[in-house]
Amino acid sequence: MVHRFLQPRRHFETLLHLRPPPMAIYVASRRLSSGTALRAMRSYSTSSFREERDTFGPIQVPSDKLWGAQTQRSLQNFEIGGERERMPEPIVRAFGVLKKCAAKVNMEYGLDPTIGKAIMEAAQEVAEGKLNHHFPLVVWQTGSGTQSNMNANEVIANRAAEILGRKRGEKCVHPNDHVNRSQSSNDTFPTVMHIAAATEINSRLIPSLKTLHSTLHSKSFDFKDIVKIGRTHTQDATPLTLGQEFGGYATQVKYGLHRVTCTLPRLYQLAQGGTAVGTGLNTKKGFDVKIAAAVAEETNLPFVTAENKFEALAAHDACVETSGSLNTIATSLMKIANDIRFLGSGPRCGLGELVLPENEPGSSIMPGKVNPTQCEALTMVCAQVMGNHVAVTVGGSNGHFELNVFKPVIASALLHSIRLVADASASFEKNCVRGIEANRERISKLLHESLMLVTSLNPKIGYDNAAAVAKKAHKEGSTLKEAALKLGVLTAEEFDTLVVPEKMIGPSD
Amino acid sequence: MVHRFLQPRRHFETLLHLRPPPMAIYVASRRLSSGTALRAMRSYSTSSFREERDTFGPIQVPSDKLWGAQTQRSLQNFEIGGERERMPEPIVRAFGVLKKCAAKVNMEYGLDPTIGKAIMEAAQEVAEGKLNHHFPLVVWQTGSGTQSNMNANEVIANRAAEILGRKRGEKCVHPNDHVNRSQSSNDTFPTVMHIAAATEINSRLIPSLKTLHSTLHSKSFDFKDIVKIGRTHTQDATPLTLGQEFGGYATQVKYGLHRVTCTLPRLYQLAQGGTAVGTGLNTKKGFDVKIAAAVAEETNLPFVTAENKFEALAAHDACVETSGSLNTIATSLMKIANDIRFLGSGPRCGLGELVLPENEPGSSIMPGKVNPTQCEALTMVCAQVMGNHVAVTVGGSNGHFELNVFKPVIASALLHSIRLVADASASFEKNCVRGIEANRERISKLLHESLMLVTSLNPKIGYDNAAAVAKKAHKEGSTLKEAALKLGVLTAEEFDTLVVPEKMIGPSD
Amino acid sequence: MVHRFLQPRRHFETLLHLRPPPMAIYVASRRLSSGTALRAMRSYSTSSFREERDTFGPIQVPSDKLWGAQTQRSLQNFEIGGERERMPEPIVRAFGVLKKCAAKVNMEYGLDPTIGKAIMEAAQEVAEGKLNHHFPLVVWQTGSGTQSNMNANEVIANRAAEILGRKRGEKCVHPNDHVNRSQSSNDTFPTVMHIAAATEINSRLIPSLKTLHSTLHSKSFDFKDIVKIGRTHTQDATPLTLGQEFGGYATQVKYGLHRVTCTLPRLYQLAQGGTAVGTGLNTKKGFDVKIAAAVAEETNLPFVTAENKFEALAAHDACVETSGSLNTIATSLMKIANDIRFLGSGPRCGLGELVLPENEPGSSIMPGKVNPTQCEALTMVCAQVMGNHVAVTVGGSNGHFELNVFKPVIASALLHSIRLVADASASFEKNCVRGIEANRERISKLLHESLMLVTSLNPKIGYDNAAAVAKKAHKEGSTLKEAALKLGVLTAEEFDTLVVPEKMIGPSD
Amino acid sequence: MVHRFLQPRRHFETLLHLRPPPMAIYVASRRLSSGTALRAMRSYSTSSFREERDTFGPIQVPSDKLWGAQTQRSLQNFEIGGERERMPEPIVRAFGVLKKCAAKVNMEYGLDPTIGKAIMEAAQEVAEGKLNHHFPLVVWQTGSGTQSNMNANEVIANRAAEILGRKRGEKCVHPNDHVNRSQSSNDTFPTVMHIAAATEINSRLIPSLKTLHSTLHSKSFDFKDIVKIGRTHTQDATPLTLGQEFGGYATQVKYGLHRVTCTLPRLYQLAQGGTAVGTGLNTKKGFDVKIAAAVAEETNLPFVTAENKFEALAAHDACVETSGSLNTIATSLMKIANDIRFLGSGPRCGLGELVLPENEPGSSIMPGKVNPTQCEALTMVCAQVMGNHVAVTVGGSNGHFELNVFKPVIASALLHSIRLVADASASFEKNCVRGIEANRERISKLLHESLMLVTSLNPKIGYDNAAAVAKKAHKEGSTLKEAALKLGVLTAEEFDTLVVPEKMIGPSD
Repeated sequence: MVHRFLQPRRHFETLLHLRPPPMAIYVASRRLSSGTALRAMRSYSTSSFREERDTFGPIQVPSDKLWGAQTQRSLQNFEIGGERERMPEPIVRAFGVLKKCAAKVNMEYGLDPTIGKAIMEAAQEVAEGKLNHHFPLVVWQTGSGTQSNMNANEVIANRAAEILGRKRGEKCVHPNDHVNRSQSSNDTFPTVMHIAAATEINSRLIPSLKTLHSTLHSKSFDFKDIVKIGRTHTQDATPLTLGQEFGGYATQVKYGLHRVTCTLPRLYQLAQGGTAVGTGLNTKKGFDVKIAAAVAEETNLPFVTAENKFEALAAHDACVETSGSLNTIATSLMKIANDIRFLGSGPRCGLGELVLPENEPGSSIMPGKVNPTQCEALTMVCAQVMGNHVAVTVGGSNGHFELNVFKPVIASALLHSIRLVADASASFEKNCVRGIEANRERISKLLHESLMLVTSLNPKIGYDNAAAVAKKAHKEGSTLKEAALKLGVLTAEEFDTLVVPEKMIGPSD
Repeated sequence: MVHRFLQPRRHFETLLHLRPPPMAIYVASRRLSSGTALRAMRSYSTSSFREERDTFGPIQVPSDKLWGAQTQRSLQNFEIGGERERMPEPIVRAFGVLKKCAAKVNMEYGLDPTIGKAIMEAAQEVAEGKLNHHFPLVVWQTGSGTQSNMNANEVIANRAAEILGRKRGEKCVHPNDHVNRSQSSNDTFPTVMHIAAATEINSRLIPSLKTLHSTLHSKSFDFKDIVKIGRTHTQDATPLTLGQEFGGYATQVKYGLHRVTCTLPRLYQLAQGGTAVGTGLNTKKGFDVKIAAAVAEETNLPFVTAENKFEALAAHDACVETSGSLNTIATSLMKIANDIRFLGSGPRCGLGELVLPENEPGSSIMPGKVNPTQCEALTMVCAQVMGNHVAVTVGGSNGHFELNVFKPVIASALLHSIRLVADASASFEKNCVRGIEANRERISKLLHESLMLVTSLNPKIGYDNAAAVAKKAHKEGSTLKEAALKLGVLTAEEFDTLVVPEKMIGPSD
Repeated sequence: MVHRFLQPRRHFETLLHLRPPPMAIYVASRRLSSGTALRAMRSYSTSSFREERDTFGPIQVPSDKLWGAQTQRSLQNFEIGGERERMPEPIVRAFGVLKKCAAKVNMEYGLDPTIGKAIMEAAQEVAEGKLNHHFPLVVWQTGSGTQSNMNANEVIANRAAEILGRKRGEKCVHPNDHVNRSQSSNDTFPTVMHIAAATEINSRLIPSLKTLHSTLHSKSFDFKDIVKIGRTHTQDATPLTLGQEFGGYATQVKYGLHRVTCTLPRLYQLAQGGTAVGTGLNTKKGFDVKIAAAVAEETNLPFVTAENKFEALAAHDACVETSGSLNTIATSLMKIANDIRFLGSGPRCGLGELVLPENEPGSSIMPGKVNPTQCEALTMVCAQVMGNHVAVTVGGSNGHFELNVFKPVIASALLHSIRLVADASASFEKNCVRGIEANRERISKLLHESLMLVTSLNPKIGYDNAAAVAKKAHKEGSTLKEAALKLGVLTAEEFDTLVVPEKMIGPSD
Repeated sequence: MVHRFLQPRRHFETLLHLRPPPMAIYVASRRLSSGTALRAMRSYSTSSFREERDTFGPIQVPSDKLWGAQTQRSLQNFEIGGERERMPEPIVRAFGVLKKCAAKVNMEYGLDPTIGKAIMEAAQEVAEGKLNHHFPLVVWQTGSGTQSNMNANEVIANRAAEILGRKRGEKCVHPNDHVNRSQSSNDTFPTVMHIAAATEINSRLIPSLKTLHSTLHSKSFDFKDIVKIGRTHTQDATPLTLGQEFGGYATQVKYGLHRVTCTLPRLYQLAQGGTAVGTGLNTKKGFDVKIAAAVAEETNLPFVTAENKFEALAAHDACVETSGSLNTIATSLMKIANDIRFLGSGPRCGLGELVLPENEPGSSIMPGKVNPTQCEALTMVCAQVMGNHVAVTVGGSNGHFELNVFKPVIASALLHSIRLVADASASFEKNCVRGIEANRERISKLLHESLMLVTSLNPKIGYDNAAAVAKKAHKEGSTLKEAALKLGVLTAEEFDTLVVPEKMIGPSD
């Protein structure tokens, strides 16, 4: 229909013609070229529209989309960042889980079962990610996530209507009265934040870290007999085994698992039931406990209702805390990846103690040049996680009164960090750690050239003679043995008996 | 072909079957469900493949894609974060600009013009964003951005071949020898970082901030006669005009423009010509100057060759600095948006001095409830920008020797911040600031109720009497005038003559 | 002696005369004017010196100081930041604890009891803070904290010598051979980091937070019947009680206590026994377990030996984690303090719901102007804690090989955060929260003016009529009741029966 | 007097007895043991007191201190962090400068010259740091810095009274009416923030960075002929000169100087003249310009009056921006120091290309072990600067309405960063960079062992043969020359003619 077609176009023309200084037009055209709105606009020209309504009046929505009026308004009011900035998929899926559980519990409290079951079916599709393309809204919207909650309500209502053989936009299943029943954006959004984060941690992050830990642990066994030079202050120090080094890494990852696990009890608390300000107005007693139980059953994770709903709406300390555990894990992984790339540096002019798997051409000229690309990807992830942690912290500290309105950025940054650490750890394990080999020859060469083995001579020839040996070797660039023999402080046999790095890797009896 | 079809599938089966603990399978299936690889895999089942080769040997690439072997390997080796994490579009486009310029300059140095012109044409398509879907690689890859450079080389080579009537994969236009001629990833990637950031700043950020500044500035004129209570420590203080308040905001944005502009001279320096380690090995003298000039002409921005190529490859201080200017702008915008939401709080139980435009339903029950959603989106953006700045800083501080290998995360976080601030400022200006109105009645009421106007009485009745008036008014909840009259320290006429807030908004003569 | 007097002076002259460009001289003179070195120099002119020696040779040390040669060298080599930057007192005291325990355990392994006991006595004085002025070194020194370890060794050795009736500098009690026996800086410094942090957390932070929690909790009871307007998005919303609001704050602090407590198990792990690289070279088997037990007994805290000494030297993830818990607590406290200052804003032109204690003159003119200065101090502390957390994170992520050499900055920033949060929480509790009173009249006035109470009318008169009432009231600036009566939709009695905020503060039966 | 003595003691007893749960007593006793208050209390027992008054009434102040009632109250109300946390000295000195200038300008506007001159004399003593011990207040106080402003007013008033032969506490020179005339804390504190920061930058930071730049630049000349292996991705790459490497570092520092200099124009803007809310109420026209001119003359720095006083009080973007430049400088210095410690790693098992000065014993056993302690101190400083930048950013973003009340933390963190970078750069230059020597033998050995020199053979023997040479050398651990000769692809003479690293360090003609 012409009428329907013109309306949205007029909207965009209006946007462009309000105050159009020359540069602004250029910007606007650029923004449109990759922005949400143009894409919507293009789709207008190729598809039909239906009218949806909210309390602001009617608005045109693309016919092939399940969303309704409030989603459409948000799409037009928040052209920030384009498609990349869409609300993360785990949030969308968690809305599916939550709305399914809400319908289930609402039926106990009197919701018409026909409608309730249709909502459950539609919500299940959202939970499975089947309706992702009906969730176009970006993170940068209302700070309560209201618009994404309405997006979920509208999509599920329209899809449920279809399931019941009715049409989109008719509101026979009502987004607010049915799908959002007993709920407020202010309690649903923090609830999906926790569901999404806890699910991602359990299904992605923990398995990836466990696998990485397991592989590092295996390596520490594989390398347990390889004695090597230690390095402190990046300088040569007393020896240890390569296995001990990898054992340190494995311990870091193990503690990382402890750290993130420690935060889960507070992440398993759900805000649902607090409604608008935490009081639970417009819910029935017991609703909060029942819905947490339903979510727990649906996700197989031990969610419970938050003991204090005011805290659960007004603050997101649990997310800040969890982000903090990821920040600590990032420092661990940064250390491990840095060590591995330095220990694998070379092939001729670096430390060269490790041989890393070669996954792609380093250079067409230099065979043996293996760039530690997995270390690089992982450490870049760590940098972003540290940054996201500051974003979460700033957002978390800026709540006011009954509601923190930095919810979407907190959710987005936290889920970003979880996903990146999980995926990068998995990639690092699979494409790097698993295939690391020790360059035993190089390790042995460095070890035996080291001057600090002289320590072993102290008991036999005394500190002063030992120091003289070391100084001579350092000055002449010779081995300790050569220096010792030249100085005549002991015989070759004595030297070989005393200087045994293998005896320097633990406390004495 | 069956053979070709099976190869990638076998690859994925291998992934799944290596160490498959129960949870890991679940994770793998989840990851695949939204991951890059599965999507590639799905496309395998619906399309044919061609063989591409690099020094690692042959590899299957989807026939409908222009990329080659190295891109395909990266796709499989870095399954981190999924599609959302693709290299930002401005980087892809900047590669188009750079490769076009490189071909142009290389023709001056002897590149076959037939090939050179085809490269320029293909690169132009990349610069225009027409080939975006041929750039599937994520940010989390080699820290030098090598794989994205090769992605650009491969796509342009294959597209140039098509333009010349040849087939993809034939390498009649060679990704390395022709498209990447005289270049290294190590100088191209920092070059596109600077091109992309400078372009985005000039075409998006500066125009958005200028418009925001202009609107705030207009408001400061519109509101220049509205005297209102000042607030320090969030407590009542001496008066000022609403125009003065908005003048402060306008000044913050103006200085923000100065700040980001101050960083541009170092951002306009291009690394190109440094090749692998900054020496310019394999380039000809003058190549660096010519290519910077070509980029300057192409973009209409004053790019020059970096005076020190070693710094330009090994550090990204210019990006850290620019990110720092965005961090400062974010603190400004956070302050402004916070003020506006608090001054607009209410309608009955807040400060209520400003009326913000109503863009979407706040509540179906409470008319007059306008949620300051644009302020919320903007302040969330500010939190992310502060976080991204830490990511950029951490990445920038971790370069080693001749190359910083946190390039993609630095580029990604910086461009993210630029885009978000630009878009959110534009949205805030358009959907909020432009429509702000003063609630003159409320402002006047608060002003005249304020006790601190008593200050004006000091010269007439003395400090002690004035204090008594104020204390009485505070204690009894009355007006200053009522208290003054009750205390009999002056007449109603005298009071009205003396207590004139309009005289309190500037220094005296 | 003149000779001794001249030597250090010559040292400084040398500093000044090496490359003295005009500005540098000015700087040098400024630096000296407040720097460590000048102060030492001044003391030279008023006191005598003794000669101390290390492997670098002899060096002059002020006679009245217990430190030795290595401390003196560090003092001269690291003139960074001046006295404010001295190693935090809890680190110095923890060194006392550790060295006492080490002597005790070393006696079991053969240390001469005469010497051992003297060391224990001297170390006890360090533990009690009696020798603080003998610890002049700054944080910004060797990254392993070696110099502070030697400072402790030297002071204790000289003090023990005195206890035994011998002279300073004689080394009858040897800093390395006796005091540092079986130890390395590389394991002692991480050990004192953990002792200091765990002690400060238990003795300062947890008690302060417990008191703050207790007072907030009391307030939530005191205020449990005060129904007030809720605010979401800073806008008027449905009501809750002031007690519920304070209950949210109390819960945040309670969880903060959980959070920091969760990190303690890893902080209770001591590196001691790992010596130089984690292997425990030069210790006896069992030394690590015994010394952890001794520290546990001495501090009455459950310290244990670290299960992996390589992790304990090479990484400080436990400190990053603990700093993360402080970062989360800072976000909580920032939220609480912000709420309290906004709720207490006024007295006439703010929200005015809370009356904060007046601790100092706000203004000599405006009675009732109470600046929320305790909130300001607390939120400034929160900002610094968030910053320190980034410092700790950056330091924690930059360890290499067997040793993280950002130990002092990690220790300093973490202890700074602990102290600031502990003290500021205590001050906030004592000088602010404890004395907060509700402004019941104001709270009631705002509540009853609020338009959102109209919600209660929906069941009786229907949504449309209720909306009409609200709109009319908003437009005319009248009360809901006035609007309802004018519209004739119900009687005054009906209105009073229906609109009861007290019934809106929880779920319905 | 007994009466006077008891009063403060009673104060402390009251503190201790209010709600004394068992743990709190312990904490209180600990806090007191190192706290400000106890120290004051102790001084009470050894000195006499005088009574000072403010609008809150009388209060006892130690007789030997120049401060007055408001300082004393702050001392008791903000026991946060102890002495280490005192307001930084540059702020105290800047107050001296400002108050001197204010008196000078106020005399032009009618201040009694006798009083004015006495104030100028007293303020000069403050500016010179002579009265530092009369400034006991900590950073964590009122967020406007009011109490430190009053501390300055009180000290100067009492000192001026003494100069005039009067007694302390008499207020013949009045802290508010005379010393603070035409001023408010709200404009003086931001003014001293800018004076202090700009002075510290000019007198400390810039000279230190200039000297560091100059030394790095000299080294780049000294090392200009030393060809060495390049490293990218930490892996062997094509060669460059050591001079080129140091030239990169020098450029980083040079740009750092540009960066901080770029921020000065906004730092040179002074808020003075804005008084309470930016309007300049209670000042005379022209006061702002005159006082900025006086400060400029006094400091010899180009201070001007801020063009917008509202911005200057309500935001501290200029400080955030300056802190951002220090953050960028910190990333530069982190990179440089990291490179230097890695290039100096060894002596046998690291890269060993640089020999760093040995400033203190590394180990009594291992001659040649030089710990890069100056690099460690510097990189720790960089970590703290990055953290302080976040503190400044958080503080800067949290201003509300007419006043940002995070002033002291912003000032403190910024000045901390300036001082640390200045001092650590100077120490690094003096104690490390200046003495760096190249290990030419080691550099040459690594260079000639490198496989990547094979690149030079491509034009002569073709890519395939060159690759074969490189692969053979890598596999057999031989030199390229040996491999080439064995393969018979060229003669020894030809090899020596072609493989000349010195020709690989720049573009070709």
